[in-house]
Amino acid sequence: MVTYLVLIYAIIAVAIIVTFSLINYIYKQEKGNKQMQEISDAIKEGAMAFLNRQYKTIGLLAVVLAIIIASANYFGHLSQGGNVAVAYAWRISLAFVAGALCSGFAGFIGMYISVNTNIRVASAAKKGLNKALQIALRGGSVTGLIVTALSLFGIVTLFIAYGGISDNPDITKFVPSIIVGFAFGASFVALFAQLGGGIFTKAADVGADLVGKVEVGIPEDDPRNPAVIADLVGDNVGDCAGRGADLFESIAAENIGAMILGAALYPVFGWKGILFPLVVCAVGIISSIIGIISVKVKDDNDDPMNALGNGYFITVILNSILLLFFIKIMLGSSLSNGIPVNYWLLYGSALTGITLGYLFVILTDYYTSMSRKPVQEIAKASVTGPATNIITGISVGLESTAIPIIFISAAILISYKLGQLALPGILNAGFYGTAIATMGMLSTASYILAMDTFGPITDNAGGIVEMSGASDEIRLVTDRLDACGNTTKALTKGYAVGSAALATFLLFSAYLDEVKNILGKPLDSWFSVDIGKPEVFIGAFIGAMIVFLFSSTAIRAVGKAAQYIILEVRRQFKEIKGIMEGTTKPDYASCVDIVTKGALKEMIIPGLIVVLAPILVGVSLGKEAAGGFLMVTTITGVIMALFLNNSGGAWDNAKKYIELGNLGGKNSDAHKAGVVGDTVGDPFKDTAGPSLHVLIKLVSTITLVFISLFR
Amino acid sequence: MVTYLVLIYAIIAVAIIVTFSLINYIYKQEKGNKQMQEISDAIKEGAMAFLNRQYKTIGLLAVVLAIIIASANYFGHLSQGGNVAVAYAWRISLAFVAGALCSGFAGFIGMYISVNTNIRVASAAKKGLNKALQIALRGGSVTGLIVTALSLFGIVTLFIAYGGISDNPDITKFVPSIIVGFAFGASFVALFAQLGGGIFTKAADVGADLVGKVEVGIPEDDPRNPAVIADLVGDNVGDCAGRGADLFESIAAENIGAMILGAALYPVFGWKGILFPLVVCAVGIISSIIGIISVKVKDDNDDPMNALGNGYFITVILNSILLLFFIKIMLGSSLSNGIPVNYWLLYGSALTGITLGYLFVILTDYYTSMSRKPVQEIAKASVTGPATNIITGISVGLESTAIPIIFISAAILISYKLGQLALPGILNAGFYGTAIATMGMLSTASYILAMDTFGPITDNAGGIVEMSGASDEIRLVTDRLDACGNTTKALTKGYAVGSAALATFLLFSAYLDEVKNILGKPLDSWFSVDIGKPEVFIGAFIGAMIVFLFSSTAIRAVGKAAQYIILEVRRQFKEIKGIMEGTTKPDYASCVDIVTKGALKEMIIPGLIVVLAPILVGVSLGKEAAGGFLMVTTITGVIMALFLNNSGGAWDNAKKYIELGNLGGKNSDAHKAGVVGDTVGDPFKDTAGPSLHVLIKLVSTITLVFISLFR
Repeated sequence: MVTYLVLIYAIIAVAIIVTFSLINYIYKQEKGNKQMQEISDAIKEGAMAFLNRQYKTIGLLAVVLAIIIASANYFGHLSQGGNVAVAYAWRISLAFVAGALCSGFAGFIGMYISVNTNIRVASAAKKGLNKALQIALRGGSVTGLIVTALSLFGIVTLFIAYGGISDNPDITKFVPSIIVGFAFGASFVALFAQLGGGIFTKAADVGADLVGKVEVGIPEDDPRNPAVIADLVGDNVGDCAGRGADLFESIAAENIGAMILGAALYPVFGWKGILFPLVVCAVGIISSIIGIISVKVKDDNDDPMNALGNGYFITVILNSILLLFFIKIMLGSSLSNGIPVNYWLLYGSALTGITLGYLFVILTDYYTSMSRKPVQEIAKASVTGPATNIITGISVGLESTAIPIIFISAAILISYKLGQLALPGILNAGFYGTAIATMGMLSTASYILAMDTFGPITDNAGGIVEMSGASDEIRLVTDRLDACGNTTKALTKGYAVGSAALATFLLFSAYLDEVKNILGKPLDSWFSVDIGKPEVFIGAFIGAMIVFLFSSTAIRAVGKAAQYIILEVRRQFKEIKGIMEGTTKPDYASCVDIVTKGALKEMIIPGLIVVLAPILVGVSLGKEAAGGFLMVTTITGVIMALFLNNSGGAWDNAKKYIELGNLGGKNSDAHKAGVVGDTVGDPFKDTAGPSLHVLIKLVSTITLVFISLFR
Repeated sequence: MVTYLVLIYAIIAVAIIVTFSLINYIYKQEKGNKQMQEISDAIKEGAMAFLNRQYKTIGLLAVVLAIIIASANYFGHLSQGGNVAVAYAWRISLAFVAGALCSGFAGFIGMYISVNTNIRVASAAKKGLNKALQIALRGGSVTGLIVTALSLFGIVTLFIAYGGISDNPDITKFVPSIIVGFAFGASFVALFAQLGGGIFTKAADVGADLVGKVEVGIPEDDPRNPAVIADLVGDNVGDCAGRGADLFESIAAENIGAMILGAALYPVFGWKGILFPLVVCAVGIISSIIGIISVKVKDDNDDPMNALGNGYFITVILNSILLLFFIKIMLGSSLSNGIPVNYWLLYGSALTGITLGYLFVILTDYYTSMSRKPVQEIAKASVTGPATNIITGISVGLESTAIPIIFISAAILISYKLGQLALPGILNAGFYGTAIATMGMLSTASYILAMDTFGPITDNAGGIVEMSGASDEIRLVTDRLDACGNTTKALTKGYAVGSAALATFLLFSAYLDEVKNILGKPLDSWFSVDIGKPEVFIGAFIGAMIVFLFSSTAIRAVGKAAQYIILEVRRQFKEIKGIMEGTTKPDYASCVDIVTKGALKEMIIPGLIVVLAPILVGVSLGKEAAGGFLMVTTITGVIMALFLNNSGGAWDNAKKYIELGNLGGKNSDAHKAGVVGDTVGDPFKDTAGPSLHVLIKLVSTITLVFISLFR
């Protein structure tokens, strides 16, 4: 066991060293001229101010929740004796705090690097595409590596601290279900980070566009617009900090879920089954580093997307080889009944997961790419006005859920059956098969996250170049990077929702194991969640409804927060003289401040709905109903997230397709209709959709943490 | 038993006599002037032509399906011997054909009366509000009574024909599960009727508005618009024929589902449990007739909605009293274990259902009424343009699902618990409790349906008055009736979705009983649908996805069918000279013809998705997975239908609210945004939403019919 733990820590150390060398590389680059620096500093300041205030709010909520978790687990376990109850209470609660802190720290680092990288990318654009691309991707990689390494570090350290390496198998088996608090802490912070950031970014966007572009008539990213800095800040807090926290908790939740399942398979694999998920995660860091380093465009005319795609391909291939090796040495021994484990079948599960991730990226591309039928259909419908644009967009979004769901279903079924075939006669074998598929899918998370954070960095770099009035040549470079960044942002959203679906199926099996633990049933017995029972049916019904209600409040929050900034921008144009002439600078900071307050206020209600609903269902309707709630929240949440992400992405690109000169081009009636669709899609794809990814994992981790209270 | 059967037939006879006297009353009314008659004849002709063609298409599909049903049941039951297999095959298949024919006939009668009543309402408007209201409601009542009576007649007759009154309890218990084919036939026709009608009505509406109002600039219902007749025809085929078929199959499915459950409780209630649902249904006809007769406005200044509300109240009260009586005499004896049945508790279940129906009507009113916050919020958001109108509308629609779901959940849980308390120690008692609640809710269906069909009649009357250039005074009367008709249409949609939710929970329990039958398990054992098993989870996942995919295809079908008519209207304006001057009549019939063809073509794909998906899931993933599919399709379908109906209704009324002079009034920017919202909402609330009501029952009846094929 110690060998593997050392290996994991060593890889974490490698990740940290690589991260520091990346940071070093970035800081050595030119910071551009004074004008660029001023803009960049304003973005930095705004982003940090938002994060500061957001963390205070989240921190306060987290402290309250930590106390509730401690009390709930104390009283929930009191029947097992006072000492046991106290042991549960502080351990789960501490893990929660650790998860929340790590998640917050990961978001902070990611954003800090991002706001320091954007100006250097803007400056490097003078030297050509390759240099700018390299800096942007290295900036993104810092987030990618830190997030994965920190998640891994937290889990391994808690595992050791809570006695996972003791010689007593009972304790080793028991530890994973305690450190689930870590995953809950991570999802809790992620939910609010994604919600708050998502509301901020879209409210600032809408406010900047509605008053600046529509009412006053100045172009996008014009320094005379008081909301322009808030808009650029939004890209960082929504995409960098938000998505970083999202994938941080994906990794944490998936690892811990798989460890709980590993514990249930203790008689088969021993401690190796528990540590295996962590090893896979660590191995993925190595593959991702090599993939990142290998990204390069040879010629300035190359499509940067191809270079990123090649890097991803290298990561996937390398990872597939490493996975086979570790599956063989860690899970390849024979079963307790003497039958040898067919590790090739388990490897098949892993490949299923990796393939699913790849297919999701392709499918998202199909539904949201300008060169494909769905987006062009929306663009064509824009010719007959905004109503037909909206109807077509909604219908494309609804339809885009079908094939991904069939693929997820197939992946779950295949990996489950492979697990059963690999470990004949073992009850939880099928679930372990799906767990391995999930590990396979998430093992490339560092690379995916690097690509994702690449998006806001290039977006910001473009904004800085635009605002500082740089030459057309430089703009062309940042425009190309920006277009590439938009694509990667859309693709990684597809990946995130796919991995969320697999991860929750895994967490659900972990939940069932926990229920058996609490009921004192043996782990190789079966606890059924019978949706034919009225309580379970009602739990499921409410679960689906929560997804609709949450989406409603998240979408509405954007509108409310946007109202605040609209009023402020109008006020500045009216009261501060000389803004339009460019003689006086607008008050950027007050816009950032107002939208910060607005976003933080509006994130509370949707957040609380998600936190309270599963607890209420579990406490009032019982453990089985909570299981039904979990499953159907996952199902509806995944489908709704696909609908929101894809329709939003398709509307966005339909507008861009028209802007490129098709169907009448800019300022045509079709374009006006396209702008309406894009505006409708913004809160779909950047607020409600990504928050749903977090929601579906949060309801799983929260039920695991509060399970002892359930009827 | 014979006494009750005679009672049911007697009430059916009463319903038919009342229907004929209503028809007689309507036909005795004045038919208005020649101009009105011409318009009315054109509507009649168009509607009948559509129905004719639609029935041919549906008939063809039904014949194919009847053969498939016969073969499937033959091979599915072959293991029980050739004779048994043949017996199953022809009985289920014949019941299917009977259900399809009855449903088609009910739709036909409803529409025939509707298109003959509209002109008489238009003509009676000269004599004042009360007379016009009476005629319109009596026209609606014909549909209401015929639909209920025919549904009841079909089931009772099949029950007797298939040996339900034999002395052998085994045969009596067995018959309900055979006549489920009747419910499937009814839902099959209802799905296509609702889909085809819904596509027709909205395509014609969009076509008439987009070319007539927007491109050419003539007012609504202007006789110069070639699509104006198609638009008026659409109200009939969508709302009358469609909703008629929808509630016909609701009643059929609920009755048969309750009978299957009654059969499972044979040891407790004997044949009385099987016949009880039919008696409740018959009793509801009597209450509804009295309610209908008592509707009256004293003063021409009264709100007609109050008069309709009073009639509903009388129906509900009368029905509550009659229900208590029949629950006492039919279910009030003691159990086989000697414990007396607490019939008051069963009555509590019935009242729960009645209350739920009432609450749904109130909630729908809240979310879609002009005088409430949600609609006014959408209207206010229209001031900042179409994008904010759409975002707010979607967010209102998503939110409007929350409270109804909590109410449904509470109703299911309460009626289930009351059932268990009333019949202690009986396994299926809880399900029978929810069955009684469903019966309670659906017992007022005749009255609700009369109110619903009232809508298109008044809508058409208004159109005829407008087109024939009648005086302002007369227009005022029809406008007031039309406004009232819009409200009743919205409210009955709420009722329809609520009853669909209850009815499918009932059908699901019937499905579980059938599974036990087929597996040869005793009926008092438990068959669980464990959503923790991957097959069941996948079935559930696909079930939720089907709802999204179906909604997508239904919404898109409207756009496609609208394209056909847009081209035709443009062609007529261009090629037929003198239309705009009013010297030449446009070719109304060719518009009707083209949109008929379009609607029938576009209804096939969404229809097939719904029919094939449950069969594929059952055959490939098995009975338990089909159960998961059923439940989650219901859950998602109900929530999605609420979202689509309520957002559509709210957009519609937000536009009307602005038109009444608020926020800038007609032709303001807010109004333009309001029109966009209304257009987006049209296919939501009149095509996809109502079709979903049918979908959720159809997937239940189809699984019951094909169950013998499932793995």
